[in-house]
Amino acid sequence: MGNTDAAYMAGVEVAHRVPVPTPRPFLDTFCSNLKETFFPDDPFRQFKQEKGGRRAIRALQYFFPIFEWAPNYTFNFFRADLIAGITIASLAIPQGISYAKLANLPPILGLYSSFVPPLVYAMMGSSKDLAVGTVAVASLLLASMLGKTVSAKEEPALYLHLAFTATFFAGVLQASLGLLRLGFIVDFLSHSTIVGFMGGAATVVCLQQLKGILGLEHFTTNTDLVSVLESVFSQVHQSKRGSLFFWLSAAAPLTSVILGSLVVYFSHAETHGVEVIGHLTKGLNPPSLTKLTLSPPHMMVALKTGMVTGIIALAEGIAVGRSFAMFKNYHIDGNKEMIAFGAMNVAGSLTSCYLTTGPFSRSAVNYNAGCKTAVSNVVMALAVMITLLFLTPLFHYTPLVVLASIIISAMLGLIDYEAAFHLWKVDKIDFCVCIGAYLGVVFGSVEIGLVTAVMVSILRVLLFIARPRMTMLGNIPNSMAYRRMDQYPGAQSIPGVLVLGIDAPIYFANANYLRERISRWINEEEDRLRVNGKTSLHYVILDMGAVSSIDTSGISMMKETKKALERKELQLVLANPGSEVMKKLDSSKVLETIGHDWIFLTVGEAVGACNFILHTVKTGNLMENGGVMGLDSHV
Amino acid sequence: MGNTDAAYMAGVEVAHRVPVPTPRPFLDTFCSNLKETFFPDDPFRQFKQEKGGRRAIRALQYFFPIFEWAPNYTFNFFRADLIAGITIASLAIPQGISYAKLANLPPILGLYSSFVPPLVYAMMGSSKDLAVGTVAVASLLLASMLGKTVSAKEEPALYLHLAFTATFFAGVLQASLGLLRLGFIVDFLSHSTIVGFMGGAATVVCLQQLKGILGLEHFTTNTDLVSVLESVFSQVHQSKRGSLFFWLSAAAPLTSVILGSLVVYFSHAETHGVEVIGHLTKGLNPPSLTKLTLSPPHMMVALKTGMVTGIIALAEGIAVGRSFAMFKNYHIDGNKEMIAFGAMNVAGSLTSCYLTTGPFSRSAVNYNAGCKTAVSNVVMALAVMITLLFLTPLFHYTPLVVLASIIISAMLGLIDYEAAFHLWKVDKIDFCVCIGAYLGVVFGSVEIGLVTAVMVSILRVLLFIARPRMTMLGNIPNSMAYRRMDQYPGAQSIPGVLVLGIDAPIYFANANYLRERISRWINEEEDRLRVNGKTSLHYVILDMGAVSSIDTSGISMMKETKKALERKELQLVLANPGSEVMKKLDSSKVLETIGHDWIFLTVGEAVGACNFILHTVKTGNLMENGGVMGLDSHV
Repeated sequence: MGNTDAAYMAGVEVAHRVPVPTPRPFLDTFCSNLKETFFPDDPFRQFKQEKGGRRAIRALQYFFPIFEWAPNYTFNFFRADLIAGITIASLAIPQGISYAKLANLPPILGLYSSFVPPLVYAMMGSSKDLAVGTVAVASLLLASMLGKTVSAKEEPALYLHLAFTATFFAGVLQASLGLLRLGFIVDFLSHSTIVGFMGGAATVVCLQQLKGILGLEHFTTNTDLVSVLESVFSQVHQSKRGSLFFWLSAAAPLTSVILGSLVVYFSHAETHGVEVIGHLTKGLNPPSLTKLTLSPPHMMVALKTGMVTGIIALAEGIAVGRSFAMFKNYHIDGNKEMIAFGAMNVAGSLTSCYLTTGPFSRSAVNYNAGCKTAVSNVVMALAVMITLLFLTPLFHYTPLVVLASIIISAMLGLIDYEAAFHLWKVDKIDFCVCIGAYLGVVFGSVEIGLVTAVMVSILRVLLFIARPRMTMLGNIPNSMAYRRMDQYPGAQSIPGVLVLGIDAPIYFANANYLRERISRWINEEEDRLRVNGKTSLHYVILDMGAVSSIDTSGISMMKETKKALERKELQLVLANPGSEVMKKLDSSKVLETIGHDWIFLTVGEAVGACNFILHTVKTGNLMENGGVMGLDSHV
Repeated sequence: MGNTDAAYMAGVEVAHRVPVPTPRPFLDTFCSNLKETFFPDDPFRQFKQEKGGRRAIRALQYFFPIFEWAPNYTFNFFRADLIAGITIASLAIPQGISYAKLANLPPILGLYSSFVPPLVYAMMGSSKDLAVGTVAVASLLLASMLGKTVSAKEEPALYLHLAFTATFFAGVLQASLGLLRLGFIVDFLSHSTIVGFMGGAATVVCLQQLKGILGLEHFTTNTDLVSVLESVFSQVHQSKRGSLFFWLSAAAPLTSVILGSLVVYFSHAETHGVEVIGHLTKGLNPPSLTKLTLSPPHMMVALKTGMVTGIIALAEGIAVGRSFAMFKNYHIDGNKEMIAFGAMNVAGSLTSCYLTTGPFSRSAVNYNAGCKTAVSNVVMALAVMITLLFLTPLFHYTPLVVLASIIISAMLGLIDYEAAFHLWKVDKIDFCVCIGAYLGVVFGSVEIGLVTAVMVSILRVLLFIARPRMTMLGNIPNSMAYRRMDQYPGAQSIPGVLVLGIDAPIYFANANYLRERISRWINEEEDRLRVNGKTSLHYVILDMGAVSSIDTSGISMMKETKKALERKELQLVLANPGSEVMKKLDSSKVLETIGHDWIFLTVGEAVGACNFILHTVKTGNLMENGGVMGLDSHV
């Protein structure tokens, strides 16, 4: 073999070597990995250049972005924010009351929740467009999860306290996730999960509300019902038709409330069975610190509810904030937003509010009304404050059926069948995730739907790891590039050489699969060659370009593959292994087994070296090597 | 822009196009994906060429490999198998009795379990080296999981019935996994998990047994204890020293049993407090069909125990089978092995056996004794049968302390600190998985250890997906290849062009991270260029070679990145996207947004095209394009 080796070395002298990375101290690697994982946005970069007092100001500005933008606040901004703020307040008041009813909480909580949390968010939030408030899905979740243990009708006080406690825990969780930089947990709720989940929740809420509405038909004339429903449905349709109807659409809920209340007031329908909101206490949020239930057994229910609703609310709020930030081209720091959401919910739980986040509908109205900064939230909070102080008696005669209609109208917008269709068109598995979440919520429960969707999403990721794609590569004519033969029909295979591309990291979950798959590729290729009477196989080149990571099982698999190929008198050649692969091959001594000479920078160079040896053997004097005679070599 | 486009088109005319794959019918893709996922080994390949009667024989041979190898069985094979079979029987009898005690089951069950299951496996198994029997870890798990609900001492009959039922469910699960081709579930128990788990279980068992042994010291002279312990420990050491001591080592347990029994018999130590096995019923396995507990509430415990022990036993058995198959260069079909294990445990549960698998120690002895086929299992079963029929009275005086020593000696071999050290050296996360499993088992429970290890393993996979590596690529001098600049110190960056490699599929779990990371790379690069007074950035090339898969969140991320770059007046260029990426970019219309002209086969061609335009702009007449004046272009 001495001659072959020499010839081989001559042939590959031009080839590039793949270096083994110089070992770095363990702590070094560990720290840099930790940084990449938890601080990918490098939040301290801006502090590094500053010092002393400036650094403190920077830190203050980091946690309270209001100090960053307030100095540049202009009157023009204020005018825009004022209009936007009043617009969202007119939406916030009826929606707040409706959603509080949905959560089986006293309606006044909806107003309280539109007062304190927006003020906190205005100071701490980094979004300019997010309008803070309660959301239907979280309200529904709260009702369904707390309702399992405590009946809102039989023990209203305990139920209320548990709602505050759940809000408190949700806030603590949100802030902790932000502080611990675990924001990526929220990323595991994919867009498709949320589409399906929201659609399912909306369907459930609509059916619930419709039941209530239809139940009313026996007690009263259905004129107002039909009119309200019609007006609501027309609003929904109009709101989809563009900005012409925007103001009408935004004002619809408040108009419905006013009209509905007037009809009841003058017709005295409340004495004929039409349920109305009834008395609302005047005055601002009472403190609720003493109402937190921090002892078992009820604390556990509140804790669980807080966790689930907190994550859901976070996912919605951050997705909404990111979407609008993208439209306006500014950056949202996910972890910072989480801290703001957490602080606003903790503050809320101490002032008789329940879970708030950034609802999509309200934020969209805020954005369309031309808001410039978080001041629109302040304006909304002030409008709600005035309502709390002076206008609560006006809601006495508001019929519940109007609230139901408001909920339904908001809910119908959440059933995003177009998004579902898009998912089907682009990615079938995402569609399955979406439908799984939808069906889970509709036929199971909100939690079942959520768990189903997250499980399917994670299973998809795991399946990708467990069953990576492995394909045969061929040479693209007129280039040195080797690409998948199923993707590039023109790619040509090389006689005597089998080039395989591995498309995933090699982990315990796929090491066995890959080993078996490689042996099947070789068997199939040998069968094919035998049938066609072509040259036999001599080299198996593995393109490791996409193998970004490898674990000990993967290393064993490489070792075993090398052995298996040796028994078949085939040479294993690696092309383009990454630094992690090289490092681990080296530290496990598998590199010595494979031979550093058989590792190339590119598939092209690897094929070149293989061809060179095949040539040398054919043209000449080297016959020791088993079955290389009569070889149809490739130029 | 007309001129730029023309110049650009001229420059890239030589470049290769990346085709959009022709759409295939949904059912087609679905079926081929299903096949890749569940039938990667193409088990029907061998049937395709056959027909009629031959096909039936093939199918019979598939499920009962004995029909495949039996016709070629020779006398030489039998001589080897006879020796190996007798050797493993001499190990199986004392180990069987010991492990049954470990599982808190009557000792005779250990003998029963070495009779029926090996016969079933000999017919159905595809391994030539696996010796079937009970294992310590599964025995321990059985005791710990069943023991939580039913006390083996207070309700021995119920406990026994539950053990049979758990075995039955384990067998059904194993066979189902094989038939449903879900063998990859076992792959999620990585090698590092098993090393840690086994070590932890071995530690717990040793401590338990030592307690028993040390407790005995007060009752009797410790001569025989010390001698047995010494002999056992010396055996362990010897067995590590190679094949010279092999026979001694293999015969040690039986020798200890015989010596221990003789000592007790002649010294009447059983009357001085040394516990002995006592009476063992003569006769073969009684049927136990009627003893299966198939009604709640106890069924659920048995079901859960069966699931957990079944998976563990499967993982051990298949790993052992694969290891020896690799030594001898034959193939083990994982799914077929599962069916064999399942059948052997279902048969076992009906004939008074408890959970069996292929223990490493016994299989290693089998292999070392020179076994040729599964006939060695038949010989062992026959030897155990003879023992059951005639020799059970001999075990009456066997002291339990000998059994404890046998267990400890087997357990010490399971604490594979060398493997743990290897894990630490090669892969720190695998080491954490291993230590997690170990500590979980030692300080928590067997289930906690297992769950910890599997969770850490899966978290690692998820973290890889959530935080993929994204690196800057540079040109390797004298080549068209672009590689990671941190891996290849010689790689050179291209002025005006930022080349980024994405090392993972783009999924919901990492889409946000990647978007932010790309923007940080660009910001850092622009900062760097500004500080050095170099050319500004014009092109961002994403090397998509390792992006084997993308979902709808990933597609949105691409769209948003394109928009974000546009606002910064940067051009997004893609290099080497795979067929799935191209298909989804196309079906979601994002391909139109990016522009098919900006997608290249290789990074080299993409850089070439970018440089060509930068040149044309510099040398000439094209000034419309924002900030391209005074450009220091690259040749």
